Amino acid sequence: MIEFETICALATPSQEGAIAIIRVSGEKAIDICDKIFVNQKQEHILLNAKSQRVYFGNIINKTKTIDECLCTVFRSPNSYTGENIVEFSVHGTQYIATQTIVALIENGAIPAHAGEFTKRAFLNGKLDLSQAEAVADLISSNNEASHKLALKQLRGGYHDTLYLLRQKLINMSSLLELELDFSEEDVEFADRTKLIALLNQIKDEVSNLVDSFALGNSFKNGIPVTIIGKPNSGKSTLLNVFLNEERAIVSDIEGTTRDTIEEKINLRGLEFRFIDTAGIRKSSNIIEQEGIKRTYKAIEDSRIVLLLVDISKDKPNDVIQEMKRLREEIDFSDKTLILIGNKVDKARTKDKEWDKLSAIQISASNKKNIGEIIDSMLKTINPNDLNNKVFVTNARHLESLKKVLKTIETIEQEFQNNIPSDLIASNIRIALHHVGEITGEVTTEDILGNIFSKFCVGK
Amino acid sequence: MIEFETICALATPSQEGAIAIIRVSGEKAIDICDKIFVNQKQEHILLNAKSQRVYFGNIINKTKTIDECLCTVFRSPNSYTGENIVEFSVHGTQYIATQTIVALIENGAIPAHAGEFTKRAFLNGKLDLSQAEAVADLISSNNEASHKLALKQLRGGYHDTLYLLRQKLINMSSLLELELDFSEEDVEFADRTKLIALLNQIKDEVSNLVDSFALGNSFKNGIPVTIIGKPNSGKSTLLNVFLNEERAIVSDIEGTTRDTIEEKINLRGLEFRFIDTAGIRKSSNIIEQEGIKRTYKAIEDSRIVLLLVDISKDKPNDVIQEMKRLREEIDFSDKTLILIGNKVDKARTKDKEWDKLSAIQISASNKKNIGEIIDSMLKTINPNDLNNKVFVTNARHLESLKKVLKTIETIEQEFQNNIPSDLIASNIRIALHHVGEITGEVTTEDILGNIFSKFCVGK
Repeated sequence: MIEFETICALATPSQEGAIAIIRVSGEKAIDICDKIFVNQKQEHILLNAKSQRVYFGNIINKTKTIDECLCTVFRSPNSYTGENIVEFSVHGTQYIATQTIVALIENGAIPAHAGEFTKRAFLNGKLDLSQAEAVADLISSNNEASHKLALKQLRGGYHDTLYLLRQKLINMSSLLELELDFSEEDVEFADRTKLIALLNQIKDEVSNLVDSFALGNSFKNGIPVTIIGKPNSGKSTLLNVFLNEERAIVSDIEGTTRDTIEEKINLRGLEFRFIDTAGIRKSSNIIEQEGIKRTYKAIEDSRIVLLLVDISKDKPNDVIQEMKRLREEIDFSDKTLILIGNKVDKARTKDKEWDKLSAIQISASNKKNIGEIIDSMLKTINPNDLNNKVFVTNARHLESLKKVLKTIETIEQEFQNNIPSDLIASNIRIALHHVGEITGEVTTEDILGNIFSKFCVGK
Repeated sequence: MIEFETICALATPSQEGAIAIIRVSGEKAIDICDKIFVNQKQEHILLNAKSQRVYFGNIINKTKTIDECLCTVFRSPNSYTGENIVEFSVHGTQYIATQTIVALIENGAIPAHAGEFTKRAFLNGKLDLSQAEAVADLISSNNEASHKLALKQLRGGYHDTLYLLRQKLINMSSLLELELDFSEEDVEFADRTKLIALLNQIKDEVSNLVDSFALGNSFKNGIPVTIIGKPNSGKSTLLNVFLNEERAIVSDIEGTTRDTIEEKINLRGLEFRFIDTAGIRKSSNIIEQEGIKRTYKAIEDSRIVLLLVDISKDKPNDVIQEMKRLREEIDFSDKTLILIGNKVDKARTKDKEWDKLSAIQISASNKKNIGEIIDSMLKTINPNDLNNKVFVTNARHLESLKKVLKTIETIEQEFQNNIPSDLIASNIRIALHHVGEITGEVTTEDILGNIFSKFCVGK
């Protein structure tokens, strides 16, 4: 265990509430807290307090009583940080929290920086770095999907995958060393086949992880959806139906560009980011008029594109042409185009062609068949993946994995060019280094500072 | 113990933070929580969990894992409410808190009303009613004085005083009954003397409590101070010095009337409410000009009046006249007038008369001698009283005490009019009833509803 100063912080939000928690961690946590805590008989009892036991008593500073409170001691290493931890559960007022922290500081504790408790948990080996990062993700998760991903990562979802990846790289390194040992003899080519097979396996796995980011990030930050269609096709009405019908949590956030507005809507536990395409409204033809660039950008950033047509007016053949043009102009390999025929209630004679086009026939104003759109959207995502697959959701991890992949590709090249094994082995060490960056086996103060400064104080 | 449904609520503020606490209380709290909590081996262990022990595990709802958490069981009667309590300490996000509460409700708990935990603590005899009210006061206290008063009340500061008052009233009742028993004989007059002495003692005590409200309320809500003085005497400068020099917490709040602005300033742990007297600025003479009514009202509402004069210009004799007029117009028996001679730095020849008038000589713009003003203000308040005296700070208690006092005065009258002892005895029961209202021995659902609805949910 690494020795540190003893830190303290308010671990609950600083607003008024029923309970506030003040947390103290460090080698001297129990000694410091013992000075400011007495039981009901006014006895200082924390030095001999049992671990994981709750004591009732008073927080005092010299002669002043600060509050009645509950106090729990967690003795090292059985605590969140791995250090001694004391938690005070006090009445939820800023005044009491501040006075308690003042008393702790007067007795030798120092105020904790943002994320310092979790950083210590990492440094003391209680969590790997990707798990520590998951703590921040978990706290900021606000929907089922992002919560599930963060919790999975916290519980070491990554850990196993990366451990296996590491083992394979080490295994490869061993085989190369074996080759070096026997380099005088003629065993090289047999081993090379085995090595290349192993390399391909590693490459596939890393590629899958890199590829998982797009969807993982969608789960985490909301699945981007664009609704396109001619003016009066009912785009706004449909968006409002999503907003109201599903009792969604709506938040207007600024998009990446100033003129893009996003609305986040929670549908059946998944968050969707509806990207407003202001440009399309002015256009009488989907891809030929003004505002085309903005709409293109929105479509390109989306995983799902809802094309809304008015089946009481539009002609199926025109729509077929539009869809064709759209597919020519934009790469739909990573996205799904869903055709929605709106105003089914106003269509006098229903054209059978709409069925052939698999258009979901709805009435946005009558809130009819909206569920079918949501079903289709969910089908393109497959939420079950959340339970079964490992997703990369962290941009830092993606960067490291991309470096691993690049190194693997270099090694592949080196094999083909018959580069000496010792040089290849040094590249495997580089790949291992980048894997280690994710879990934190390899790290720098800069990286740690950057990661933990994004945490809240008290975590 | 009274049987209730099992209630649950978030006990920490609903903002994002490191930790959130979800609290469950009721006979079935442990059974319900056992269904949604498993330890790391996926075992349901809460039914046999030790009281006041912290367990690490997971909150689950059917197959879904909601969070890793700490869980503490408090077995009845050793808990805040006196019932079984389970507390979950989870990651501080609204999503996890909501999902946990959903899981609890699906397993038989119901959402708690505002203040319901404390209400149950009262109903189960863990706190008397004045202590329960102190919990809300404690949570809303934001300065040393209000905090000290609330904590004192929570720790039963009232309880003892009212218990003794009750005992004396019961004692009196007994003496009256003794009189009734011996009414055939000639013992009446001896007992009456004793009774009247006891009655006077009770009356004094209740009077003191009633009188303590004005100061107690000042401690709780801020001691009202008015700064008066001619234009350019330096009133605003002085107020700004208080604001900045003492690192005060400033909050602009609307006063009782729309045109009065109050500034709360924390000076050495006591909160002062500076009432702005806009009217005085327009007046060249303190009490003769326009705006006089508003200034009068402010002065009447104050405990401290700071009269600011410019000793580089003003004549001591004029100020003596002004002070005399002020004392004639306004009753200063419950307030202190402090004379402050500002601009001491600009006064070329210093008039000895200012010393005779005990003027505190300052320079507001040079921040000179400001501490002396604060000393004088604190002297009029005597903060030590906070440690030694019992203060009534609650308007509901004041109402009950006034009723007790009125009943005591009626009894006094009845003694003088030789009213029969049994009638007097019934009035003593009325007095006891009103004492009981404070501690909650006598109460109604209306009173309780009114008190606890002001609490936050989760307390």
